[in-house]
Amino acid sequence: MSITHPMGFRAAATTAGLKKSGKPDLALIVCDTPDVARRSSAAVFTRNTVVGAPIEIGRARRAALLGSSDSAGKSTPPTPGALPWRAILINAGAANAATGEQGVLDAYACMSHVAQHLHCTRDEVIPSSTGVIGHRIPVDKVTAAVPALVASLTRGEPADTAAAAAIMTTDLVPKTAHREIEIAGHIVHIGAIAKGSGMIAPVLDSAGVPVPHATMLAFITTDACIPSLAFQHALEATCHDSFERISVDAHPSCSDTVIALASGQAPVKPILDNTPEYHGFKAALAAICRDLAEKVVRDGEGASRIFRVEVRGAHTTNDAHRVARAVVDSPLVKCAVHGKDPNWGRIVTAAGNAGVPFRLADCSLSIGGIRVFHHGTPTDVPRDNPALKDAMGAATVLMELTIGHGDASTWMIGCDLSKQYVAINADYTT
Amino acid sequence: MSITHPMGFRAAATTAGLKKSGKPDLALIVCDTPDVARRSSAAVFTRNTVVGAPIEIGRARRAALLGSSDSAGKSTPPTPGALPWRAILINAGAANAATGEQGVLDAYACMSHVAQHLHCTRDEVIPSSTGVIGHRIPVDKVTAAVPALVASLTRGEPADTAAAAAIMTTDLVPKTAHREIEIAGHIVHIGAIAKGSGMIAPVLDSAGVPVPHATMLAFITTDACIPSLAFQHALEATCHDSFERISVDAHPSCSDTVIALASGQAPVKPILDNTPEYHGFKAALAAICRDLAEKVVRDGEGASRIFRVEVRGAHTTNDAHRVARAVVDSPLVKCAVHGKDPNWGRIVTAAGNAGVPFRLADCSLSIGGIRVFHHGTPTDVPRDNPALKDAMGAATVLMELTIGHGDASTWMIGCDLSKQYVAINADYTT
Repeated sequence: MSITHPMGFRAAATTAGLKKSGKPDLALIVCDTPDVARRSSAAVFTRNTVVGAPIEIGRARRAALLGSSDSAGKSTPPTPGALPWRAILINAGAANAATGEQGVLDAYACMSHVAQHLHCTRDEVIPSSTGVIGHRIPVDKVTAAVPALVASLTRGEPADTAAAAAIMTTDLVPKTAHREIEIAGHIVHIGAIAKGSGMIAPVLDSAGVPVPHATMLAFITTDACIPSLAFQHALEATCHDSFERISVDAHPSCSDTVIALASGQAPVKPILDNTPEYHGFKAALAAICRDLAEKVVRDGEGASRIFRVEVRGAHTTNDAHRVARAVVDSPLVKCAVHGKDPNWGRIVTAAGNAGVPFRLADCSLSIGGIRVFHHGTPTDVPRDNPALKDAMGAATVLMELTIGHGDASTWMIGCDLSKQYVAINADYTT
Repeated sequence: MSITHPMGFRAAATTAGLKKSGKPDLALIVCDTPDVARRSSAAVFTRNTVVGAPIEIGRARRAALLGSSDSAGKSTPPTPGALPWRAILINAGAANAATGEQGVLDAYACMSHVAQHLHCTRDEVIPSSTGVIGHRIPVDKVTAAVPALVASLTRGEPADTAAAAAIMTTDLVPKTAHREIEIAGHIVHIGAIAKGSGMIAPVLDSAGVPVPHATMLAFITTDACIPSLAFQHALEATCHDSFERISVDAHPSCSDTVIALASGQAPVKPILDNTPEYHGFKAALAAICRDLAEKVVRDGEGASRIFRVEVRGAHTTNDAHRVARAVVDSPLVKCAVHGKDPNWGRIVTAAGNAGVPFRLADCSLSIGGIRVFHHGTPTDVPRDNPALKDAMGAATVLMELTIGHGDASTWMIGCDLSKQYVAINADYTT
């Protein structure tokens, strides 16, 4: 179960003919709540300077719904009458990025067609695309597929799995997750699907000033009732502690997107910002996002194992993040993980490249709980220590790095770099 | 010819037993000028926060010779009586990095032994190490090898090549270069050797405030007479425009080092800072460093071809550098080069990840002179265009990227990412 697990959602998928493989490539998620006061939506998008047409459209609609503020602090209020999204149209096979103004027109054409069949407005439909950059969406193929797609909208496991499969590109497995939480005595459901395998190092923006997200796409549904602004705040906070903590190849995409829809069909009062209910909801949202994020990096292109880097003792969380990112993105560390080689010098020097000053004498490192470097000096654990070799061959290799006496810490998850990664990306046009 | 091409230099190499392969692993370069007023030296080191013992020692000696200033602008004058280096002792097989205080003592022991046999002071010997991080130098093996090493010092092609080979780690070929220039009617010689294949993305410091250099080692000799401070200025400027413009794997080493010695034996007046002679000398130094830098990246671990990214239209040179570095370091771009796939979307989105704002509508890209993306829109050149495929298969693939209307531009050179890179680094402990 995933996106149709919460009440008020239907999903469907079909083959529109966008993927060369002939596999399903078009998915639709629809919220059926007629009462617009109970519905809401939230979204975060890539912070890449280069973005696809769907992102341009999504940002503009988000700004209309929630208002926005630019980096200079200038605020723009919400547009009166702007509605939350009630449908997400997702295609794989063409990113509709770097396609100029025509790309926006193509997306509008698809959105209009879906809106017509759903009997809603164009702006209640949000597009999302993944695939080859620079390739236009074949609008005729999409519009030809829409009537049957809408007609097949349904709830249940098959619809969930079909949608999760249709949005895959180099993914080997569909990624789904769901949770139930109790809020004020009532059960609230959250469901989600995600895709992503390569071009994964999400750094996502916020509705206000841009914050940082690959093509990773994630779509979240809930039957909670939560106003769009509180929903947006919860989504931003959870993405920062989940999707932004993973990296497959250090290359954020122009299409990274996380979109969340709430149907409001659970019999609960609206969840207001900063209430105990809000924090309970946010915790459940975070758990589902971390679950999906780990599934994405574990299905990273060519990955055979993942590794978790925990950085402690930094002066600021930002310093800790920079160090953790430098380690997870080092090709040499990734190759060492692939070769199960406890080559800790690569980990320490990768940390030293983060641009964060620290004293080597304050630096210690454990791999799988085994201390290999302590206060600037190697320990007496030899590299061929069997327990150390085992730790480097774990399904999740744990690296605990202390860089000083500060209070700030963080974690990030990366995957190994294999010959298969090269094969996928030297031969495949993503 | 290389390091003994200039007058006043001898070199030698031997097998001390540091490399598991049993290949030569110890080299010595010596300047024979007795008149200290004619001799000089200069050096730049990695900007990695984690540095090897040889770098700690080298920085301290450079500060003694030239004075130093910290990031807060506090200046320390040169130490009276400090002498330029007259000998460089280089070992491969152990990086002597992350070895604590013991690493410094080990280096001192080796330096003292060489000084004793050369009849100079310990501080006139500069150590340089490459190999496995965290491994101590086997001082007894080094000191046992020193007498014969000193006894075999000589000039000529065999000595040059032997030294260039002894400093290799995963390098497939020794790297040498030399130039002659005319200064004030007299011929001045410059020679150099370098090593480096992996952990290559040099960002080098300066004698004053740190500026940005992998384990790349380069050693330069000249018979020019140039005071150490002017020599240092010339070296810093040329490294920035040569070694810092290459990246194999985006992982600056803890041992990156460029050391330059001048013997002053050419019959020319001292070259003073900012004179026409200085600029002529600096241009020749830059040419030799660019030659070596390109040899390093072309011998990058697993590399089958290199690519040159030219960025234009940036507002600042720093912006241009950030964009160029984001492109050369993208694993997806590197795989596309390996697969000869003109997948320009990866190039444009890599640029978009640099954190440098630009408008996609101002962005254009040519590959091998063929325009594939123009003012934010794909051109009508199909990806299977034969000339475009040929351009992506060139020994040096040229990518010309314009990101706006600014005056600033730069270039960087990277290499493709192959399965061989993974094999080398998953199985080899560097």
